[in-house]
Amino acid sequence: MGARGSVATTATAGCAAIAAGLHPPTGMVTETPPFADTGLPPLASLVFGGHDILDCPLPKRAEALAEGGVLPYRLPTAVRSELDAADAEIRPGGPLPGDTRTDQQIIAAFAADLTDFAHRHELARTVVINVSSTEPAPGPDDPRLPASSLYAAAALRAGCSYVNFTPSTGLRAPGLADDVADCGLPHAGRDGKTGQTLLRSVLAPMFLQRALPVRAWSGSNLLGGGDGAALADPAAAAAKNAGKERVLADTFGTAPEGEVHIDDVPAMGDWKTAWDHIAFDGFLGSRMVLQTIWQGCDSALAAPLVLDLARLLARSHEAGLSGPRPELGFYFKDPDGGTSPALAEQYAALLAFAERLRGMA
Amino acid sequence: MGARGSVATTATAGCAAIAAGLHPPTGMVTETPPFADTGLPPLASLVFGGHDILDCPLPKRAEALAEGGVLPYRLPTAVRSELDAADAEIRPGGPLPGDTRTDQQIIAAFAADLTDFAHRHELARTVVINVSSTEPAPGPDDPRLPASSLYAAAALRAGCSYVNFTPSTGLRAPGLADDVADCGLPHAGRDGKTGQTLLRSVLAPMFLQRALPVRAWSGSNLLGGGDGAALADPAAAAAKNAGKERVLADTFGTAPEGEVHIDDVPAMGDWKTAWDHIAFDGFLGSRMVLQTIWQGCDSALAAPLVLDLARLLARSHEAGLSGPRPELGFYFKDPDGGTSPALAEQYAALLAFAERLRGMA
Amino acid sequence: MGARGSVATTATAGCAAIAAGLHPPTGMVTETPPFADTGLPPLASLVFGGHDILDCPLPKRAEALAEGGVLPYRLPTAVRSELDAADAEIRPGGPLPGDTRTDQQIIAAFAADLTDFAHRHELARTVVINVSSTEPAPGPDDPRLPASSLYAAAALRAGCSYVNFTPSTGLRAPGLADDVADCGLPHAGRDGKTGQTLLRSVLAPMFLQRALPVRAWSGSNLLGGGDGAALADPAAAAAKNAGKERVLADTFGTAPEGEVHIDDVPAMGDWKTAWDHIAFDGFLGSRMVLQTIWQGCDSALAAPLVLDLARLLARSHEAGLSGPRPELGFYFKDPDGGTSPALAEQYAALLAFAERLRGMA
Amino acid sequence: MGARGSVATTATAGCAAIAAGLHPPTGMVTETPPFADTGLPPLASLVFGGHDILDCPLPKRAEALAEGGVLPYRLPTAVRSELDAADAEIRPGGPLPGDTRTDQQIIAAFAADLTDFAHRHELARTVVINVSSTEPAPGPDDPRLPASSLYAAAALRAGCSYVNFTPSTGLRAPGLADDVADCGLPHAGRDGKTGQTLLRSVLAPMFLQRALPVRAWSGSNLLGGGDGAALADPAAAAAKNAGKERVLADTFGTAPEGEVHIDDVPAMGDWKTAWDHIAFDGFLGSRMVLQTIWQGCDSALAAPLVLDLARLLARSHEAGLSGPRPELGFYFKDPDGGTSPALAEQYAALLAFAERLRGMA
Ligand SMILES: NC(=O)c1ccc[n+]([C@@H]2O[C@H](COP(=O)([O-])OP(=O)(O)OC[C@H]3O[C@@H](n4cnc5c(N)ncnc54)[C@H](O)[C@@H]3O)[C@@H](O)[C@H]2O)c1
Ligand SMILES: NC(=O)c1ccc[n+]([C@@H]2O[C@H](COP(=O)([O-])OP(=O)(O)OC[C@H]3O[C@@H](n4cnc5c(N)ncnc54)[C@H](O)[C@@H]3O)[C@@H](O)[C@H]2O)c1
Ligand SMILES: NC(=O)c1ccc[n+]([C@@H]2O[C@H](COP(=O)([O-])OP(=O)(O)OC[C@H]3O[C@@H](n4cnc5c(N)ncnc54)[C@H](O)[C@@H]3O)[C@@H](O)[C@H]2O)c1
Ligand SMILES: NC(=O)c1ccc[n+]([C@@H]2O[C@H](COP(=O)([O-])OP(=O)(O)OC[C@H]3O[C@@H](n4cnc5c(N)ncnc54)[C@H](O)[C@@H]3O)[C@@H](O)[C@H]2O)c1
Ligand code: NA
Ligand code: NA
Repeated sequence: MGARGSVATTATAGCAAIAAGLHPPTGMVTETPPFADTGLPPLASLVFGGHDILDCPLPKRAEALAEGGVLPYRLPTAVRSELDAADAEIRPGGPLPGDTRTDQQIIAAFAADLTDFAHRHELARTVVINVSSTEPAPGPDDPRLPASSLYAAAALRAGCSYVNFTPSTGLRAPGLADDVADCGLPHAGRDGKTGQTLLRSVLAPMFLQRALPVRAWSGSNLLGGGDGAALADPAAAAAKNAGKERVLADTFGTAPEGEVHIDDVPAMGDWKTAWDHIAFDGFLGSRMVLQTIWQGCDSALAAPLVLDLARLLARSHEAGLSGPRPELGFYFKDPDGGTSPALAEQYAALLAFAERLRGMA
Repeated sequence: MGARGSVATTATAGCAAIAAGLHPPTGMVTETPPFADTGLPPLASLVFGGHDILDCPLPKRAEALAEGGVLPYRLPTAVRSELDAADAEIRPGGPLPGDTRTDQQIIAAFAADLTDFAHRHELARTVVINVSSTEPAPGPDDPRLPASSLYAAAALRAGCSYVNFTPSTGLRAPGLADDVADCGLPHAGRDGKTGQTLLRSVLAPMFLQRALPVRAWSGSNLLGGGDGAALADPAAAAAKNAGKERVLADTFGTAPEGEVHIDDVPAMGDWKTAWDHIAFDGFLGSRMVLQTIWQGCDSALAAPLVLDLARLLARSHEAGLSGPRPELGFYFKDPDGGTSPALAEQYAALLAFAERLRGMA
Repeated sequence: MGARGSVATTATAGCAAIAAGLHPPTGMVTETPPFADTGLPPLASLVFGGHDILDCPLPKRAEALAEGGVLPYRLPTAVRSELDAADAEIRPGGPLPGDTRTDQQIIAAFAADLTDFAHRHELARTVVINVSSTEPAPGPDDPRLPASSLYAAAALRAGCSYVNFTPSTGLRAPGLADDVADCGLPHAGRDGKTGQTLLRSVLAPMFLQRALPVRAWSGSNLLGGGDGAALADPAAAAAKNAGKERVLADTFGTAPEGEVHIDDVPAMGDWKTAWDHIAFDGFLGSRMVLQTIWQGCDSALAAPLVLDLARLLARSHEAGLSGPRPELGFYFKDPDGGTSPALAEQYAALLAFAERLRGMA
Repeated sequence: MGARGSVATTATAGCAAIAAGLHPPTGMVTETPPFADTGLPPLASLVFGGHDILDCPLPKRAEALAEGGVLPYRLPTAVRSELDAADAEIRPGGPLPGDTRTDQQIIAAFAADLTDFAHRHELARTVVINVSSTEPAPGPDDPRLPASSLYAAAALRAGCSYVNFTPSTGLRAPGLADDVADCGLPHAGRDGKTGQTLLRSVLAPMFLQRALPVRAWSGSNLLGGGDGAALADPAAAAAKNAGKERVLADTFGTAPEGEVHIDDVPAMGDWKTAWDHIAFDGFLGSRMVLQTIWQGCDSALAAPLVLDLARLLARSHEAGLSGPRPELGFYFKDPDGGTSPALAEQYAALLAFAERLRGMA
């Protein structure tokens, strides 16, 4: 879901461009040598569709992304037919204000869309990936499931594997616990690790290994685009920040001082700047500081991971694996349990997983 | 050697302060839980001495470091007696201009100093650590050994294990190859990894693992103090930079574009600022940038590593290990062969080494 | 008021140190050549006193500041007698919770303290400077005056000139309008311009003069100490931020996008880091960015300005000037009306004022 | 000269785009209100031509700049006819290796090209602007004039006013002193002030005005493109850096510690990053730091200034002004004598000049 968003559009257009040989697969880990012969579905075999609550046609969205420097400017024209094809497979999302259906009715409708999609395209399997706007975390007594959980439940109902690329609830709703336990499907989450948290997952272990205590870790993120607007809602930002701080708490045992801010700066479009300021102690209590400034295009960071995950989940599904896939902690801010927060160990786990898939191929 | 320098003075004073319980052992990896019961010599058992070509008494040097904010301001007074004791064990270094002795005569003199030191203090073993000023790399046809190699040869001759914490030649002089091969002593090097290169050893693997090609990696270092002055000599700086770029070439297979500068800025004293600018490609060729700014006190970064290495080499020596110790690549910019350039793997190797030492205890 | 705070203690200790020739008058504009022969009171003639709600003796506060690297470590001892003298002149501030006095009673009590101070020391004139914790802005219907306004009213009542170095209300309370209009005393404010705003007051005019439209100006401030703790209160921070954004709105006509955050980071003590990210447009709409990182000790930035202002107000008073002094906009984030927001013009106005004072000498 | 370079192409294409109303005149100071009614030639009246030693057609160069994100991607097509027209007016530059003409012969040839250009287009006056590659500074005993001086001499001979936008010698060759003194033409230089030096011209005065002594000012510049390649020649870079340091020496009376580096980083194309690190002293000797990171497209910064200067010189010529124009110090790193190094004062001088021109209109 979120099929007309920046991340989804970039992933759809980019997959077509790479499959056509127009661009190298930069940023796609599944296209590096360790993933050869692991039985992943070829990029050219992927079929795109989804749900969104917006109408904006995908080719038009791609044009806007090219204007903003996210996509190469000739790309929307070059992959026009693939964008049209995906556009034709995007169904109206929900729930919109005033929707009177029950949760179960909505789930059933989404599941029917998914089944229909797989059926018409004669797909062996479908992966549902949440790349829609970050939701505020639901209250504990909320009688309704949040939208992300409705889609997640529909995915399971339609026999699809599932990835939650956002900090929204998805499969982690208490009301879905039984469905998740019984589904027999692989799933992975939560919240793609693309920038500031990626950095933190290599820097925090460095401080730990060098016995340099971090006194305070503070951060500011400036971004525009749809994600910036969504995260201007403090409740949505809180969900996002929890993941960013989690890597620190998990690495150090306890979170250091310091806050994280996410500012909506429309002028920056889909380009994000993240500043981190890390105050740490050295020998004999000397005070030292590391600062990092990360300037990237968020959608371009996320899209190759989304394609990686689509392939890895499809392959996991084919290989009969089910339940949470801790081997994919490499991709997430807040991975499913039992994963080290250190990127190096997550990468080792991913390589071991590739090895295992190769053995099954 | 370099026993009156910033690093040596900080290590000497700091060891006394930590042994006396005045400060926690921040930055000392050998004081973290994985090194418990590995048979390392206690800090309080270490005896300090060395060579230097300067006269400045150690307590006075420590006062100057406290003025510059490197040492806590009450520390020189608090550990005055330990500084006096170490000061009494510093012998004149060399060779000074006009010295007419042959290389062999100088080596013999240094070795005699070392034997005498160990004898008078009834030490089980001695570790010689090079923390003197960085030398220019010697020319291929130079008939004389550089100073660092004279000291290194003397260490072997006196039966001492050896650590080269600088980019100078040390044991790597071709003329010492036979002595090194036959010495039966453990040794480790080269050039302590304390700041910019430490960062590079975690960031470069991140880009590699995420399949994000680095286009250019540029760096600038500003520092004063004795090290800044020594590195203002382009030949000495060239030796230093080779190590910094090595981690990139070793990680990526080939070094990306970009230069490294080291500027002597006397106003900064022993405080260093290192700025790195990393231009990398994202999905579909989008251009992204990471910048890092590292502000630290170089001597405070180096000193705990020097103490770690002293203990690890003494223990290796006791355990009968000899030759280069690739398990210690964690500590060096340009480690002895066979080491991964990634800090995470170097740390894993160090932990495995601790395990092995524990098994021998 | 705020006489035991970081700024006040630094100003008191520093004035003594400079008067004694222990340090050059770094940061004091009134000690530069353009202020020669303008009749300013010599530093050695200043007598310090004040109000505070804390008990901590000034020498002890100074020791703590030396520990934190704000004051040179030998200074508290060197100026011990001057600190003791000032300490003896600090009266209990207020109002504390539970104080049952009316506003008028409190004002009268403060004014009596001021008169008594001037009388005992036979002072020609007294300058009251607000360097106490930033208050939340009072509500429009608040029946009581905020503390800063009680002190300000007391200053006028006691015939003292007045400076508001904080963003608190001070003389700008509507209820004091008549007193201010009739007082016949010089006064100046509001909120010392020491770091991020100082920078903005030179950078914003640069963009304007070069016809480079600023799209977004975002900022983050990290600081600890008493000021960090006070500004952790969102209401107090809001008062502070209003001043920071004012310089942008005043320069550009309208404020660009972007937020300012102030984070309380106790680990940073009195040292502050301010990061600014300025997204601006270049020729043909190209997107450019300037980032600034300011790392300074806030009290050391503020103290020399406080001393400058004390001297300038005393001299203004002596010269018979009264009302707001727009010539002092150079010192303030949110100066009294009629001042250009550009530092260069404010400096020119200050120089012209020096000239005028010289003419009156 | 340099008519096919990045700056020249951007200025040519941009002038056409702005004249056609496709873009606002961002970055052009002469299009701001203070320059209304000063008699400047309208942008649409400007005719472009020049010399270059390269063949690459201007429309193709513009395409390459659009690929690199310097020009909006549709612009080269939109202003194709204006680019073709300018392209037709670019004459072969020189001297190329092997050229056997004397200096006087080359000057005569260039002057003939200029006269012919003005004649065919029936131009009232022509402004020659040097935007060609930075030359190494000539040696004191060099018998030949550098290329920039040949063009400059030709300009005077053909009765054209002249601007040197580069650090090359231009009119400042000792051998041209008499020609310059007698020419009766307005001229201006040297080296456009677009980024790091622009910043320095507002920051250095701030430190001075606040009595904060700068201990060290260090800088690094990373850039690619033609300018990066030219400045990879240390002799050319030395010429450039002299201008950058001049603003500091002129402001502070003496240059602070610190070096400036210019690195050629081809991966960055025409985008430049400049990092400055300024170590300054605060009250009582506290150590503080300001760092700035400027990320911009150099050609987009330079082009509007080139257009401004073309208009201002043409108007000066029309108004009968001659000799160096110190009123234009606002635009230059190393302006002609008698100019304050502070941007604010340079801007005031420029506004006064606008006023003067208005009075003459
Ligand atoms: N880009 C990154 O680096 C990154 C990293 C991690 C996570 N994410 C997450 O990915 C998500 C997408 O980011 P984006 O930049 O594409 O945002 P976007 O705003 O461009 O796209 C979100 C899309 O979701 C749609 N949507 C909203 N509510 C919906 C609903 N109920 N049903 C169906 N569609 C709905 C919106 O209409 C929009 O088209 C965000 O949650 C973001 O936090 C992004
Ligand atoms: N501090 C760090 O982070 C770090 C990291 C890696 C390596 N290093 C290296 O450690 C070394 C020491 O650094 P420092 O900051 O203490 O420098 P320093 O200048 O303070 O000390 C060097 C000392 O070596 C002495 N010396 C010079 N030549 C000698 C000789 N021939 N014999 C004996 N003594 C001699 C000098 O007199 C001086 O006392 C340098 O080579 C530096 O590059 C430091
Ligand atoms: N340091 C700077 O660069 C800077 C710049 C501009 C403004 N300021 C302002 O200066 C003020 C002082 O800053 P600081 O760092 O010294 O803070 P601080 O917390 O160290 O000191 C504030 C003092 O005010 C006292 N105080 C609080 N309420 C009082 C009351 N009602 N009556 C009397 N005293 C009272 C406190 O007890 C404390 O001793 C703050 O408002 C700050 O925002 C500082
Ligand atoms: N862009 C900025 O911000 C900026 C600021 C100040 C100064 N400058 C200066 O402007 C100049 C141009 O910069 P650019 O980025 O356009 O460089 P560029 O390399 O793109 O263009 C320079 C052009 O000069 C031509 N040239 C070289 N020698 C010549 C000769 N003898 N006769 C005629 N043409 C010759 C080259 O062929 C090339 O086309 C440089 O000297 C640069 O230092 C640029
Ligand atoms: Na540099
Ligand atoms: Na922030």
